[in-house]
Amino acid sequence: MIEAAAGAGYPMESVFALEGDAIQGAIEVSAEVMRYLAPTLHPRGPVAVMRIPPSGHMTRACLVAYDLSDPGNLGTLIRSAAAFGMDVGVTAASADVWAPKTLRSAAGGHFATTIEQDIQIGDLRDHGFSIVAAVPRGGSDPGILRTVERAAILIGSEAHGLPDQLGAHVKVTIPIGVESLNAGVTAGILAYAYGRDRDREGSGPGSASR
Amino acid sequence: MIEAAAGAGYPMESVFALEGDAIQGAIEVSAEVMRYLAPTLHPRGPVAVMRIPPSGHMTRACLVAYDLSDPGNLGTLIRSAAAFGMDVGVTAASADVWAPKTLRSAAGGHFATTIEQDIQIGDLRDHGFSIVAAVPRGGSDPGILRTVERAAILIGSEAHGLPDQLGAHVKVTIPIGVESLNAGVTAGILAYAYGRDRDREGSGPGSASR
Repeated sequence: MIEAAAGAGYPMESVFALEGDAIQGAIEVSAEVMRYLAPTLHPRGPVAVMRIPPSGHMTRACLVAYDLSDPGNLGTLIRSAAAFGMDVGVTAASADVWAPKTLRSAAGGHFATTIEQDIQIGDLRDHGFSIVAAVPRGGSDPGILRTVERAAILIGSEAHGLPDQLGAHVKVTIPIGVESLNAGVTAGILAYAYGRDRDREGSGPGSASR
Repeated sequence: MIEAAAGAGYPMESVFALEGDAIQGAIEVSAEVMRYLAPTLHPRGPVAVMRIPPSGHMTRACLVAYDLSDPGNLGTLIRSAAAFGMDVGVTAASADVWAPKTLRSAAGGHFATTIEQDIQIGDLRDHGFSIVAAVPRGGSDPGILRTVERAAILIGSEAHGLPDQLGAHVKVTIPIGVESLNAGVTAGILAYAYGRDRDREGSGPGSASR
């Protein structure tokens, strides 16, 4: 994750590594100090201190975490968006974008995409995004996403889903049986479905919507 | 999760609930006792005791956890398999199928599909499964899965992937950029891609391969 951040040009204030790990520019600390610095129980280091970057400004098709309160699911959504060349929008009532658990689940994805926080769905509509709501039943097959330009694909929490009055342009439902899908998996499948035929034409979901 | 197990006919030895929760047949306990019984820090109950079911016998198309050591990813894979009507195979070196974290990630999926443990890939081949390997690069587009019958889709760990000498019939690669996907998300996308056109014909991946 630190390599991803450094590689993307995010400045580090300081980096701490375990004695003997020989990481260039890092301050070496004992295992005892590392346990104090790191958010995990058995840290292997290194640990970096950096300022939380300001909220970004989405320009590409995006996955939107709509009041997604689980940091693991939010991180997985960010990771999938980065992988499929999409931006990320996050509503104010979602989990903390920069919480340790969100960062760990995103596996460096924070530093490979644009994340816009505290978004409002009305603003996205005003800015020309096609609002796509992922709903558990009654929506169109996700294959329809190939016909949608500059989608903002909204993923709600597993407990509460999305409100009815969002004014979505398109509702999609992944065809499954009576069971449910993890919200992070739902985000990944819809990002895949959105990018699918675009990839065949040689332009990813990102480049197609820039 | 307890409702899913009970609804699927798995026998409970006993069920414990917090005093006042009024769950039929449950033994009421104090918050203090619940903290002792439950695997989480702030349990809301109820907690059930049941025997771990014996390993099942896969008959349908399946997702296979190949040395997948993360219990969260294994649980997510089980949940997606249950949702898409597929069975689950698990190699011996994978995470514990019945560990609390695996159960929580699967959200009841254990009780809605067949899980076969300690599987060998050679045995799957002998039993007529088409071995599909998910590889990070160089594989076919997942769209090819619509032409595969009775697939066993192998998902390796994020750290180690799959060994080269598996003798897979088909290798597939999800088209993404330089980033990577969560193993549980990879499993979900490939289950979706496998079931996709079968669903349109009115037969899920499960019924198509029974």
